[in-house]
Amino acid sequence: MERKRGESMYLGAIEAGGTKFVCAVGDGDGNVHERVTFPTTTPEETFEHVIDFFKRYDVEAIGIGTFGPVDLHRESPTYGYITSTPKPHWSNVNFVGAINEHFRVPIGFDTDVNAAALGEQLWGAAKGKQSCIYITVGTGIGVGAIVEGRLVHGLLHPEMGHILIRRHPDDEFAGSCPFHRDCLEGMASGPAIEKRWGKKGIELSDRTDVWELEAFYLGQAIAQYILILSPEKVIVGGGVAHQPSLLPLVRQNVLDFLNGYVQHDAILHHIDDYIVRPGLGDNAGICGALALAKQALEK
Amino acid sequence: MERKRGESMYLGAIEAGGTKFVCAVGDGDGNVHERVTFPTTTPEETFEHVIDFFKRYDVEAIGIGTFGPVDLHRESPTYGYITSTPKPHWSNVNFVGAINEHFRVPIGFDTDVNAAALGEQLWGAAKGKQSCIYITVGTGIGVGAIVEGRLVHGLLHPEMGHILIRRHPDDEFAGSCPFHRDCLEGMASGPAIEKRWGKKGIELSDRTDVWELEAFYLGQAIAQYILILSPEKVIVGGGVAHQPSLLPLVRQNVLDFLNGYVQHDAILHHIDDYIVRPGLGDNAGICGALALAKQALEK
Repeated sequence: MERKRGESMYLGAIEAGGTKFVCAVGDGDGNVHERVTFPTTTPEETFEHVIDFFKRYDVEAIGIGTFGPVDLHRESPTYGYITSTPKPHWSNVNFVGAINEHFRVPIGFDTDVNAAALGEQLWGAAKGKQSCIYITVGTGIGVGAIVEGRLVHGLLHPEMGHILIRRHPDDEFAGSCPFHRDCLEGMASGPAIEKRWGKKGIELSDRTDVWELEAFYLGQAIAQYILILSPEKVIVGGGVAHQPSLLPLVRQNVLDFLNGYVQHDAILHHIDDYIVRPGLGDNAGICGALALAKQALEK
Repeated sequence: MERKRGESMYLGAIEAGGTKFVCAVGDGDGNVHERVTFPTTTPEETFEHVIDFFKRYDVEAIGIGTFGPVDLHRESPTYGYITSTPKPHWSNVNFVGAINEHFRVPIGFDTDVNAAALGEQLWGAAKGKQSCIYITVGTGIGVGAIVEGRLVHGLLHPEMGHILIRRHPDDEFAGSCPFHRDCLEGMASGPAIEKRWGKKGIELSDRTDVWELEAFYLGQAIAQYILILSPEKVIVGGGVAHQPSLLPLVRQNVLDFLNGYVQHDAILHHIDDYIVRPGLGDNAGICGALALAKQALEK
């Protein structure tokens, strides 16, 4: 497939997950034209698939939204690396370098959740807003944030999934986080749900107690994010958010925890439109990588 | 006092507290040339003092760092107002309007803690950094934040003093926050200390148990801020921070709560230089207002 003259530019997008990679080409309006998915194996093999895919297109920039931890500091000698991940073979891997070796185009590189937040701000549920957070609940809990129009980085990058939360008084589960035991991720991630209840979340969809407890933790965490970041939109994605009963319970818990303190109409009277599912649906990740490519091209 | 030709510009600064106002003129390098302090009475009387002071100078911009809550949205009809404060006479007061009526210069307007964060970033402990947080512990607990070089606003403005914290297992104090009872402010503000121990903090300076508990709560909160905002510097100001034993205990609690998760040298090996007192000392507030004036002039 070659680009015709006069057609809008092609952008490349990589959504790099611990289980699978998605590669796509799309345009600057967030439309995905072609995509391919393959399992994450060794870096060598995986990058080969990536390079083979993009060789077929004339992309002007590539955006990478990846699992981490990653080094996002441009001045750092290991900028663009996946750093100390427990995932075998993937520690200390020069992701940006491997792509840049074959494609001499601007590369945008950020965490998967920051990418999704950016995609949602450009083309999804937070369109037109200067701030938002994107939360994903799955194997881990990750949160990307845009504040004052910019993706939040800082010293490293936020690790909002690991905030401490207050336990539910009836919950005796010890928690599954190897670092903090009963932090948010340790209490509310997919593996925490499975460990606490003995079944995967998807097999527990009719158990109201499961989702009430999950919403207690997620709602509490979102209340903290609101108090600290004051986002204009809160987007909840990832596998667990597919549970239909969850989001209404989360909203109610946020209201309970804030207890009228943040006096803004969006929270007090329109919370259904404030805490929402991704506008891009399950495309939030790959569109986010496309958004990173767009941003890299514009810089 | 008139400005001589060739001298650097004069900037005006207002540090508006619930108890006292500080007004100053200074320059774009953070130097305060003249200052005056008076008690906060009614808005009419207080603004009269402010206006009388600035009439003596030829200021090119005025910065206001104020107690709140405030409306910071420029498009809002009540931009520049102190909104629904419990402080008598000060609800729904047009602060920026009152100043602008007499001085037709650019006005910078933000919360007192955001002002202090900006001052510290320009001239103090966070000089050269793109992100920092400034925490003050006094009658309330307030936090200002700079992320990616910009003051954090968002939907309203952050209210980080009200995050939920995990109680110390030996602490039976009910908490003093009227909204959340035992949130951070409810457990660790000046009034919370006084209510729990029956004496003001300043009279308890030799009681190790008081400061160990205080550091448990502040350290826990700072760990949350680090996980969510990833600031490059954490600055602890306000009256309570004058307690000499407090900051070392806070640092230790931050390390304990993070438990090695945020693997950055600044935290793991240089925490004494990461969580610090204000570089501007007790001038952080008024210099911060000066910084807002500078920013307003540059916009």
